[in-house]
Amino acid sequence: MHHSDLAFCPIGIFDSGVGGLTVMRQVMKALPHEDIVYFGDTARLPYGNKGQETVMRYCLENVSFLLEKKVKMVIVACNTATAFALDHLRQSFSIPILGVIESGAQKAVENTKTGCIAVLGTRGTIQSGAYQKALQQADPYLTVVPISCPLFVPLVEEGMGEHPATEMIIREYLRELRDYPVDTILLGCTHYPLLYHQIQTIVGNEITLVDSATTCAGKVAELLQYETLMNNQGNSLPQYQYYVSDDPVKFQELGERVFGHYLEQVGLQV
Amino acid sequence: MHHSDLAFCPIGIFDSGVGGLTVMRQVMKALPHEDIVYFGDTARLPYGNKGQETVMRYCLENVSFLLEKKVKMVIVACNTATAFALDHLRQSFSIPILGVIESGAQKAVENTKTGCIAVLGTRGTIQSGAYQKALQQADPYLTVVPISCPLFVPLVEEGMGEHPATEMIIREYLRELRDYPVDTILLGCTHYPLLYHQIQTIVGNEITLVDSATTCAGKVAELLQYETLMNNQGNSLPQYQYYVSDDPVKFQELGERVFGHYLEQVGLQV
Repeated sequence: MHHSDLAFCPIGIFDSGVGGLTVMRQVMKALPHEDIVYFGDTARLPYGNKGQETVMRYCLENVSFLLEKKVKMVIVACNTATAFALDHLRQSFSIPILGVIESGAQKAVENTKTGCIAVLGTRGTIQSGAYQKALQQADPYLTVVPISCPLFVPLVEEGMGEHPATEMIIREYLRELRDYPVDTILLGCTHYPLLYHQIQTIVGNEITLVDSATTCAGKVAELLQYETLMNNQGNSLPQYQYYVSDDPVKFQELGERVFGHYLEQVGLQV
Repeated sequence: MHHSDLAFCPIGIFDSGVGGLTVMRQVMKALPHEDIVYFGDTARLPYGNKGQETVMRYCLENVSFLLEKKVKMVIVACNTATAFALDHLRQSFSIPILGVIESGAQKAVENTKTGCIAVLGTRGTIQSGAYQKALQQADPYLTVVPISCPLFVPLVEEGMGEHPATEMIIREYLRELRDYPVDTILLGCTHYPLLYHQIQTIVGNEITLVDSATTCAGKVAELLQYETLMNNQGNSLPQYQYYVSDDPVKFQELGERVFGHYLEQVGLQV
């Protein structure tokens, strides 16, 4: 394929489930002319509590599937997958592959004045140390406070974000913040933007929340520009395709109810 | 193989993860001379929020794996898997296969005096209607109150069973019980026995909790007796083998920390 034709190819995004829709939404906003193919590996979700070998194997399969759909680049819209598999994916495939960690870490480093940043994530993401590494690569003098919040995803998916039990669990997880001069909290999981306001209310306005979905979309635009892969055909409506590995109706229902993301057409890919 | 040799073969148990250990423990107690091979499909857990087709496919693979280990019977120690796949498994394989639903339902029917039984389970189990069907087959005049409790599993696995947020969530899920003369609650998920005391305290002692792990072990003993497959070699120590599809160390850690189940040796089966 000619490089100029490649620009008309879609962007591929994958996640273990619906969470990556928060990333997709930001990409849709930042790059309104791009076609997107989204893959949610719902038959094997969640990734956050699984081991590195397993998650790496799943990610290889997911990227191979997106390549069949002729994507020009891939966004790993899952923090655990980025933490465990990004390097390996970049070694295995020749197209550009972006994760959700670097850009979020960079934004957090730009924001902090106290030099003390907290990272919230699933157990897998936190245990991988990927955010801690990315932050300390940007600035070795930072203090990083990593906090596993494994109940946030199920609470969000149950639509219980506003429930007092959720507030209680947020307070519990964030209790140790009191011991540090944290001024920046990095939301290291694609579901956590749905708890943005609850977390902000609990920690107070002196602390800035950085959401890696938004920062990642900015990186995607930069990358496409740099690689001259941007689709500048402003006169056609973009096409959005969705595929999942488990029941499409469940995905549609959860995506619309919890993420408010209209899902026209979801295909099954086993 | 001669039928008499078959009696020395192990019992196979599978679950999506660690939950089936509550069933295994009851089988170990009821049948202390039986070898057991346990398979936890941890690379693809949980099953409770996945679709029927997907769960059926996973279950076929799990039983095939146990057959390679020469098991003489299989216990489907997962309520969602029983609900979605038991009939299909029985059609596909010739060895005896037991699930965790029928025996629990039978015990609950024997217990109720008001004729009103509540069933707690994951969304998959409840939506399948399998308990409702099993209960109403036993007694068509019963009133069944099915309640999805999808947060119980993550709360238990986080070791937050004793946390006030968990109590709040239990109260929330069980609120609708007040509208019914329920005298029996069926715990339709292998994790829920770990919330036994919390639930009992909240609902009060007039309500009986029935745990399908215990009732299932009774059924296994009956079946082995009936099929003359019981291992009566009282003089040898039983062997317990564990296999998982994701990181064995994670399984070991969770099994020991949350379930208090000593796990000597866990193999990886991808």
